Amino acid sequence: MNNNNFTITTGTSGITDVPGFETAGVACGIRGPLDGRLDLGLIYSAHECNAAGVFTQNDVKAAPVRLNQEMLKTGKVFHGIVVNSGNANACTGPQGKADARKMAELAAEPFGLPPESMFVCSTGHIGEFLPMDRIAGGIEEAAANLSDKPESGQRAARAIQTSDTITKTVTARFQWEGQTITLAGMAKGAGMIQPNMATMLAFIGTDARIDRALLRKTLKEGVRESFNRITVDGDMSTNDTVLILANGASGIKVSNKNKDLIELFQKSLSAICLELALMIVGDGEKISKVVEICIDGAHSHRKAEKVARAVGNSLLVKSSWAGNDPNWGRIMDAAGYANAGLEEEKIDLSYGKFRDRLEKPVVVLKKGTPIPANKELWQQQVSQPRFQIDINLNQGKGRCRLFSTDITDKYVNFNKTE
Amino acid sequence: MNNNNFTITTGTSGITDVPGFETAGVACGIRGPLDGRLDLGLIYSAHECNAAGVFTQNDVKAAPVRLNQEMLKTGKVFHGIVVNSGNANACTGPQGKADARKMAELAAEPFGLPPESMFVCSTGHIGEFLPMDRIAGGIEEAAANLSDKPESGQRAARAIQTSDTITKTVTARFQWEGQTITLAGMAKGAGMIQPNMATMLAFIGTDARIDRALLRKTLKEGVRESFNRITVDGDMSTNDTVLILANGASGIKVSNKNKDLIELFQKSLSAICLELALMIVGDGEKISKVVEICIDGAHSHRKAEKVARAVGNSLLVKSSWAGNDPNWGRIMDAAGYANAGLEEEKIDLSYGKFRDRLEKPVVVLKKGTPIPANKELWQQQVSQPRFQIDINLNQGKGRCRLFSTDITDKYVNFNKTE
Repeated sequence: MNNNNFTITTGTSGITDVPGFETAGVACGIRGPLDGRLDLGLIYSAHECNAAGVFTQNDVKAAPVRLNQEMLKTGKVFHGIVVNSGNANACTGPQGKADARKMAELAAEPFGLPPESMFVCSTGHIGEFLPMDRIAGGIEEAAANLSDKPESGQRAARAIQTSDTITKTVTARFQWEGQTITLAGMAKGAGMIQPNMATMLAFIGTDARIDRALLRKTLKEGVRESFNRITVDGDMSTNDTVLILANGASGIKVSNKNKDLIELFQKSLSAICLELALMIVGDGEKISKVVEICIDGAHSHRKAEKVARAVGNSLLVKSSWAGNDPNWGRIMDAAGYANAGLEEEKIDLSYGKFRDRLEKPVVVLKKGTPIPANKELWQQQVSQPRFQIDINLNQGKGRCRLFSTDITDKYVNFNKTE
Repeated sequence: MNNNNFTITTGTSGITDVPGFETAGVACGIRGPLDGRLDLGLIYSAHECNAAGVFTQNDVKAAPVRLNQEMLKTGKVFHGIVVNSGNANACTGPQGKADARKMAELAAEPFGLPPESMFVCSTGHIGEFLPMDRIAGGIEEAAANLSDKPESGQRAARAIQTSDTITKTVTARFQWEGQTITLAGMAKGAGMIQPNMATMLAFIGTDARIDRALLRKTLKEGVRESFNRITVDGDMSTNDTVLILANGASGIKVSNKNKDLIELFQKSLSAICLELALMIVGDGEKISKVVEICIDGAHSHRKAEKVARAVGNSLLVKSSWAGNDPNWGRIMDAAGYANAGLEEEKIDLSYGKFRDRLEKPVVVLKKGTPIPANKELWQQQVSQPRFQIDINLNQGKGRCRLFSTDITDKYVNFNKTE
């Protein structure tokens, strides 16, 4: 897709598309000594990187999350990320903290680097200690197998998966003064997906040169309308992490001095975040539909978001979507309990086409009164694997877009036991 | 059960246990002209009543809810309640408003009363207009069949059911100066059950003489720790209503002048509310378990409630309960995103016996660190149809008790279409 002068492609090899980055994905038996699944990934740049991160807002944060936050405060330069799946290293007390530190140490050692240059991420079961001997073996093997080949990028992306059914990678490129700047990312996530990210890990690399403050600002902006606007089950994880590493290999410096360049970088980064977020929500555990909820006309953006989340997380609304039931009464009920000061007699509601607000929508409710419409027409919309719900509160200028999913009986069965 | 000098019994005939109250339950075909289900109930007292009510906090309120709120503000005396199931008269605009008023008028007319003396309640589908001709016929039939016989109380209780599988009635009695004071109630509710009540209707009658201000105060107190502390699916309805009518037939006046009497009245009323609330949560749609969540040691009661609701509404936690999985990691995750300022390293967590805090609990987490315990022992607790989770945040004195349920695949299938 060519979009505002940048191209973006999903299903790429991910991070290895970025010059100067190497990755590896190995199987070290974290889920059990005989488990052959890829479960440990390594991302490495020989060039020194600037970095920025956004993390879960859960009070209960996994040990590696706290460690990364500390590293971003005190660290000077960064070289990579070590990440395991199968065990979240969350709710593991002082032992978990020591284990996370040890992972950084083990990952930095083969390159003669200080531990504080390697970020650490974990995802999987909560409340179990990491099998550190197997992790140590895995890190050693990964470091020995680093490569910038496409297969290697894909292996790293697979190593971070838990209940994911697809590998999530994306690459964006744009030209600047005859040179190419690349941004590429990989992500995982399928359950415990809500508010401010989820058991959701996303790692992005770029060869732009960009200082930390600006990198942080652009990442936050990118995350705001993407990873922070998806929900599968309303559960916010202990481990959510988005990290970006910029190794400067392109030699092109993105700074506040060049507005056009920074705008292009921001657009590319935001697009990377949105594509990864949409892949996550589309791969939600046992879902059958993705629904774009657009709230307009709220008193404030904050109130619009409350309404969107109430609708997007209502069990009754989500159940009706699974049944192709255009049950707008449940949507109104959920919007009403968002505590956003709705005035029923002002509300317009319609069903429309996914990510296409120009398409003529099917109106259901006008100024709070049901339109005597063709129920079959509504049902047609709701039966699509992707559709949109537009709610205009007609009170003010607040708006919010949230991507949600239906919920199926299979989700509940899938999550009965870990 | 004899409890602090009052007796309380569930599964009674309900409102007709109270001297001076008559009820009826008839089938008028609200769900369709050929549907033989009881769907219209009438509660009537020839004695003038004082009344008090508590209603949904949803911004989207059904027409009868708004009407009742208005009546309580302007009305002088009350004589009863007319209620239908099968149609919620919610999101129905001006037509719905007119229909609710008409129901009051029709219910008052046979007794030569003003419409503002009869409350109106509806429960069922949202967004459809009431079939007023059938309702009119139903009210006429109900008025002609009023009776204080036990069967009649049961019929009224059945007429208000939607997805309920049991009839919910309770009667409390206590002695005062050689006379008996009775309180009795009936309720419905099984889905859309959360925060501040749910598609939850509860009607309570008493023969105490009590002024409106005091009746309101005691009702609010009774509702606080009962109807406002249950959740099935986290969805708050548009129609939630609790109404109490006091007809004074006993001649005993409950007032602030007699502390012992008012205390006894409050305890009986609170017990009525709790028993009805527990029947509702225990009859949650397709649930298999009721879980009592006790949060202690929060910075404030408000924060304790936030934590209790986060845990009690987490889809992942509820799914694990359905699977008899003592997945305390998910509980900690949910507690953490309640945004209540938890400190992980202070938290104690244990499983215990339902409504019995004296029973020795099975400790899972002590000061944020997992106890190397017998997982089978935890599983034993979580496999009970009723159990308790105790979480002590060890930060302050805030506490909250919430009754929740598991969620099953059958819930989702049941709610796929209305």
